[in-house]
Amino acid sequence: MASIASTPPLTRASVLAAHDLISPYIHLTPLLTNSTLSSLASTPQTPSALKSTPWEGETPANPKIRLFFKCENFQRVGAFKARGAFHALKRLIAERGIEEIRGRGVVTHSSGNHAQALALAAKTFSIPAHVVMPNISTPSKIEGTRGYGARVYFSGSTAAEREAVVNEVEKETGAFLVKPYDHPDIILGQGTMAVEIEEQVAEMLEKDPGLGVRGEKGHGGKLDAVITPCGGGGMLAGNGVAWKGMGTRVFGAEPSFQGADDAKRGVEKGEMITGVKSLTIADGLRTNLGEWTWKIISDKEHVQGLFSVTEKNIRDAMRLVLERMKCFVEPSAVVGLATILYNEDFRKMVEREAGEEGWNIGVVFSGGNTTVEAIGKIFAAASEEEAERQEGVLGMDGARTAENVAG
Amino acid sequence: MASIASTPPLTRASVLAAHDLISPYIHLTPLLTNSTLSSLASTPQTPSALKSTPWEGETPANPKIRLFFKCENFQRVGAFKARGAFHALKRLIAERGIEEIRGRGVVTHSSGNHAQALALAAKTFSIPAHVVMPNISTPSKIEGTRGYGARVYFSGSTAAEREAVVNEVEKETGAFLVKPYDHPDIILGQGTMAVEIEEQVAEMLEKDPGLGVRGEKGHGGKLDAVITPCGGGGMLAGNGVAWKGMGTRVFGAEPSFQGADDAKRGVEKGEMITGVKSLTIADGLRTNLGEWTWKIISDKEHVQGLFSVTEKNIRDAMRLVLERMKCFVEPSAVVGLATILYNEDFRKMVEREAGEEGWNIGVVFSGGNTTVEAIGKIFAAASEEEAERQEGVLGMDGARTAENVAG
Repeated sequence: MASIASTPPLTRASVLAAHDLISPYIHLTPLLTNSTLSSLASTPQTPSALKSTPWEGETPANPKIRLFFKCENFQRVGAFKARGAFHALKRLIAERGIEEIRGRGVVTHSSGNHAQALALAAKTFSIPAHVVMPNISTPSKIEGTRGYGARVYFSGSTAAEREAVVNEVEKETGAFLVKPYDHPDIILGQGTMAVEIEEQVAEMLEKDPGLGVRGEKGHGGKLDAVITPCGGGGMLAGNGVAWKGMGTRVFGAEPSFQGADDAKRGVEKGEMITGVKSLTIADGLRTNLGEWTWKIISDKEHVQGLFSVTEKNIRDAMRLVLERMKCFVEPSAVVGLATILYNEDFRKMVEREAGEEGWNIGVVFSGGNTTVEAIGKIFAAASEEEAERQEGVLGMDGARTAENVAG
Repeated sequence: MASIASTPPLTRASVLAAHDLISPYIHLTPLLTNSTLSSLASTPQTPSALKSTPWEGETPANPKIRLFFKCENFQRVGAFKARGAFHALKRLIAERGIEEIRGRGVVTHSSGNHAQALALAAKTFSIPAHVVMPNISTPSKIEGTRGYGARVYFSGSTAAEREAVVNEVEKETGAFLVKPYDHPDIILGQGTMAVEIEEQVAEMLEKDPGLGVRGEKGHGGKLDAVITPCGGGGMLAGNGVAWKGMGTRVFGAEPSFQGADDAKRGVEKGEMITGVKSLTIADGLRTNLGEWTWKIISDKEHVQGLFSVTEKNIRDAMRLVLERMKCFVEPSAVVGLATILYNEDFRKMVEREAGEEGWNIGVVFSGGNTTVEAIGKIFAAASEEEAERQEGVLGMDGARTAENVAG
């Protein structure tokens, strides 16, 4: 990474500058609406849907919600990670000169989207890329990373094993480390999607005011809130920085399974939580926050709330996005939508704060890198779970199935 | 349907008029490009990929192809069928008056997309809709049809059983029959996509000429060919009518499994083939042509060629569209792309006729109405087939698996 000393401040202006730097290299991904999903979000859940949840017996919330989906599954390499990788590399080149970077190369560790993103960015500037991947990585992701010309190294799955291999590569090659999320350059890069969302919403509402709020208290083409998935927190922190002071609230969504909701729990507890080991089906969100992302995400000035959803919520939202919106997304991509549809804390908040007027909410679909086989397994396991639940074999948490799927 | 006597002639002008009639009610679906898939189409297949095909041992063709995808999976009700249904209904209303149609209602038989399309169109004009569905229809499609307010009746799966129930409904209610494909109003309605494709390609190539052909022999923003799936033939015939005399060739694609390629075989034989009973995974294409669609499709002035693909070709193309393009499509939607990627007769034709310059080809994705469970089954069965094939259990046709999947 570029040195912290040279890093731009974590401000909206820096996000705008980052967007200028990377826009020649990334796709302007579409912002889509879907009337079925907006209606569903604006319909109360049934009391029976709240059974065995923390909201059992409560009156289901009745918020008014209009959804705007930022489809980063159509981004290069199939995920928003291309933004951070290109930004980190452009900054590194600006600081050290292209010759030095080409001579020494770059290295990272990642089991998934960041690996392919860095490989693509490095290839674009003719820089050698070294990627350390856990030896249990899916073959398609290993192949994808190699397909962009990166050299792949394997390590065990623990942080220590991974870092040992990274250190070795650094020593041997002199390569510069490009972290997957915990660095200002990555955070600013991921935040660039906010610049596009803002422009796209304004353009869309200008063309068709009916999509947003009509009437005297109209919002003038603005989002009331944005919600993004939160794993390592680069994207959520980037949005927090980009939207600060713009009148658009920023929320984060996490899977609750096996403690993957470390950001939410950390903020509630007042201290950063580390050492998360979750096998949630939202495999891009299994990691905990880093130092930089924690600092931003735990600050109410940047991020106004964190919410978590169950594995079943994620599957249900994923089915809707696939079957109704016809968009191919990975499980991690839909935790924001799952929160909006199924988390009564979130829904009650919208009902309370937005009233009759409702909210325009931007929802980030973070990526689409999954396979037909993975989808088959996720939903086959879900049907088995459902069948067993009906036979009374399973308890209320459904944890067994999710473990089977993720393992 | 409106009476044949009042039907507009099957000409491009009638398609343009149909488009004017229905455009307030349908989505202008996106036209997408994808550089990975265009590259793949422009790369020769490997000799080993041609093993156990009719082209084994031949030199793989090396055509130059640029693809433009018309995404009717994003159409209302998730399929192009909305076009024909709205057109048929608008024509019927124009002929008989809205009061009579509202009083008597409309009826159709369909196991899938046409049922939902007619139900939506009828609901839009406050017309009662009656839909006869085979009692083996998937619950999601029955639910979908009812969700648009139609009354659903069940019948056996044969044509005779189905027609008996339709006749009964007609007698009881006086409802007007709206056929799924074999009527000029439906054909003209489905043809309306051609009007949009033409405009969208021209617009796209004007913005970015690099997508099409550069150089002296440039095509000036035109498609050289369009390929659509062919089941009952309404969409293919509609495209045949719409593109006639425009310098854009029209091709049809069918599954070869269990004789579902009736249009291709019929044209080769010089007579219409009926009584097709195929359980191809492309379940929208299991039916044979009707009288009207046969007349147009068997006419070289309208449709310049028909090609067929295997179940494996369909699965392989479907995987690419889902995992690479991130578009959610049903198996029937990808037979055009499968032809372009895997049918050497088609590929050799393009190489021969287009030469160095290559062709711009429009590919229609007809719909996206499938489920995560169906996808799971299709690809789970495919892996089993692959495993058994490697153990030498299966022969070269792979029919067993496709039967399992479709049954």
